[in-house]
This record gives sequence, C-alpha cells and structure tokens, in this order.
Amino acid sequence: MIIETYPFATAVNEEDLTGKSVVVIDVLRATSVMITALENGAKEIIPVITVKGALQVAKKFKPDSYLLCGERNAVKIDGFDFGNSPLEFSREVVAGKTLIMTTTNGTKALNACRKAKEVYIAGFLNANAVVKKIRDKSEIVLLCSGTNGKFSLDDGLCAGMIMDKLSENGHAVTDDLGHILLKTWQSSKGSLDQTLKNCYHLNVLVENGFEKDVDYCLQKNTHLIVPVYKPDKGNIHV
Amino acid sequence: MIIETYPFATAVNEEDLTGKSVVVIDVLRATSVMITALENGAKEIIPVITVKGALQVAKKFKPDSYLLCGERNAVKIDGFDFGNSPLEFSREVVAGKTLIMTTTNGTKALNACRKAKEVYIAGFLNANAVVKKIRDKSEIVLLCSGTNGKFSLDDGLCAGMIMDKLSENGHAVTDDLGHILLKTWQSSKGSLDQTLKNCYHLNVLVENGFEKDVDYCLQKNTHLIVPVYKPDKGNIHV
Repeated sequence: MIIETYPFATAVNEEDLTGKSVVVIDVLRATSVMITALENGAKEIIPVITVKGALQVAKKFKPDSYLLCGERNAVKIDGFDFGNSPLEFSREVVAGKTLIMTTTNGTKALNACRKAKEVYIAGFLNANAVVKKIRDKSEIVLLCSGTNGKFSLDDGLCAGMIMDKLSENGHAVTDDLGHILLKTWQSSKGSLDQTLKNCYHLNVLVENGFEKDVDYCLQKNTHLIVPVYKPDKGNIHV
Repeated sequence: MIIETYPFATAVNEEDLTGKSVVVIDVLRATSVMITALENGAKEIIPVITVKGALQVAKKFKPDSYLLCGERNAVKIDGFDFGNSPLEFSREVVAGKTLIMTTTNGTKALNACRKAKEVYIAGFLNANAVVKKIRDKSEIVLLCSGTNGKFSLDDGLCAGMIMDKLSENGHAVTDDLGHILLKTWQSSKGSLDQTLKNCYHLNVLVENGFEKDVDYCLQKNTHLIVPVYKPDKGNIHV
C-alpha cells in the first residue's frame, strides 16, 4: 500500500486528491463530532464552509428535522444549536436529525476532497475501524485537517496510529511526512497525553474549558463506525 | 524565541510571512547551491519562478556577466549554463557573475517571501552560521521548501538542527510541526544518512546519478556565510 500524507487542509488542493481514496482526520474536534453524532443515530451530516452557507442549506429543510452546529475559533456560532463539542451530540438530541455543520478546519479539509473517489472520516475514536475499511486498497491519502493553516500534532499522531496498524497488515510505503508521523506515533505508544502536551490546539481547547472534550476525543477505538463523505451528494453518513 | 515552521513551499502564502523574519531551507539542492555559489564569489543570485522569466531577466545583463542555472525535476534546463548541482558552482566559473536561477521548489519558497521583513538562506552547510545570525530575534519562521508540494525530510531535519541549536541559546517555543522535527533531529544525531534513507527526494537524486551532490549537501557547517534574499531588490547576496 502506498500512503500519502498531508499536514493540513490548506496544504492540499483538489487536484492532489482527484480520484483518490482519502481519510480525513480532525481529532480536535470535527471528525470526532461526526463519528459521535452518526453513532448516536444522526441521519446525515452536511459539511458547509461558511456560516452563511450553513444558514442557506438550513432553509431547504423542515423545521425540527435539522440542527445547526459548528464553531469559529473553538467557540459556538451565535444562533446555532450546537458548537463543536462531541459531548453535546447525544442520542437524545441527534437521532434522526440532519446536522448542518461548519467548522474552522475539518469542513475545509472535506471541501478539498470534492473530486476524491471516496472519503472516510477518522479520529482516534474509530481508527481501527477505518483501518479495516481501507486495508485492502493499493493507495490511500491521509489528510490531517490541522488548525488554521498549520499542522496539528493530534491529527498527525492519529495518522501515525492508522499507518502503524496498516503496516501490520502488509507492506506500507509512506512519504516523508508519513514516515516521521509513524515514528512519532510508535515512540509515543501508551503515552498519548505526554506526547500531546505540546500540542498547540489541544492546549487552546483546555484553556477554553474544553478539557472533557479533549479527553473524549483521545479515546482509542471506542466506536466501530466509519462515516463516509459523498462529495457528489454533499453529505456524510454511515 | 517563537519559532514557526512550514512543511513545504506551497503550504504557505505570502500573508503568513508578511513582516516576518524567514529562513528558507532547500537542502537538496537549491539553498545548498546558493550558499556554495556565493561562498565561491558569485556577485548575486536572482531567483526566478519560470524558465521564461529567467530568460527575460537575462536580457537585462551584458553577455558573460551572468550564468543561467536551474532544473526541472532534478534535470538541467535545456540551453542553460548549469543545472542545480552545487559541485558545478566552482570559484573558477562563478566568481563575479550574476546567477539567474530557477528551480522546482526553492525559488517557489522564496517567491512566498515577497512581503517578508528579511529572508535568510539555509542548509546543513551553513546551519550554525544561520543560528548565529538569528539567535537574538524574538520570532522566526523556518520555511522548508519541500519537493513538488510535499514535505521533504532533508529540509525538515535541517530545520530540526537549527531549532536544536537555537534552543541551546535560550527558551525556544516551537509549533507542532517544529516540535516533531526537533525530536526527529535529536533522535537522529550522528546518523543523518540512516535517518534520511527513506527520504523520497534524496533517493530520486541518487537514482539519477546525483549521489555526490547528496553527500556534499549533507555536510554540516562547512560554510560560514549566510546569504540574504532581498525581496524588494529581487536578489540574493552575502
């Protein structure tokens, strides 16, 4: 298997991903939210780049059939139903609903996948499930979403975890970035908290009171589903 | 000191670098060529994005006062005086000359620095000299040039070497990418060849007969000069 890795959403353009099988990773917190909400019975998630765009999409739905959710700089958008905290997305509130979601980095990464062949949604929560889904492919792209046009170590370590598991399955050829992310993951095993203590975005979330979100998103393999993004339909579902 | 790090030329835009002090790294081989040529007495280097642009710039110079040099996909450009092999740029041929240079990645990185405050040219060859030049600054950006829109480990390790030396000098705050590059450098010490054996671009160069170039570019601190790029003047000199 040939594995390409990109460090953040704005470091890739749609030509790089055209026709490719892509795994999008935004551990803190967009893809962790998506995995949680769909596991808890949400009907679908529609990722949208802008707040204005999200409000436009909402007009197409019946009242009470959708929820508006998302953040800007980690804070819930004014007037939206939810922010970007996975703990909010319980079965009681999301079951059967369409989630219209706009986040700072994760939805940008999905937007770059417009011409991809297929797109899977990954985090620590479902890393092994993602590996099972993709392990027989000959080529895969791991797209770390990053934070505001910078690489974020939480996404990079999750990519490392996925590559580690894929390499157990057979020969895996990584690119230079993948190589150091795999090494960083392998040397961090069992001490994710320690390895991530310098992670800028994690520290911003903790400073803003989202420590429980961080603890939740760093759990490994608690979820068995792999959400799939369909660029032609513009939505994510299981 | 706050250190920002970017993984490749096309992962940064000029707004990210506006008003910043930037160190551009393209170990294999553009910045190694620049350091070598200027140490050997070249008058200046004019980096140009396109071959056509290089030929246009050449028209402004007297015959025999300039040399056209550069590569596309590691190969010398047809009709140019030199390719991108540092071993070609001896004192005998470059002393007093203006070098008009276009390379695949290094000149793209310099182009992204159009609005930077100041730009230094670095490689393993002059890493310690660069550190001496920048060590009293409060903020610095390390811009790895990469290879064709991908991160390249040779540049990343050189960034790690520079950060390691800067952190000896006092408190250095790295971003997430800088953190893992520093760790990768620290764990690689004394075995650069071993650490770079998976480096894609290095292997491409070796396969294309440029092994001596690679050996040359991986030498540490053989040069004492720090070339400076002046975006307003469009040239690089010592």
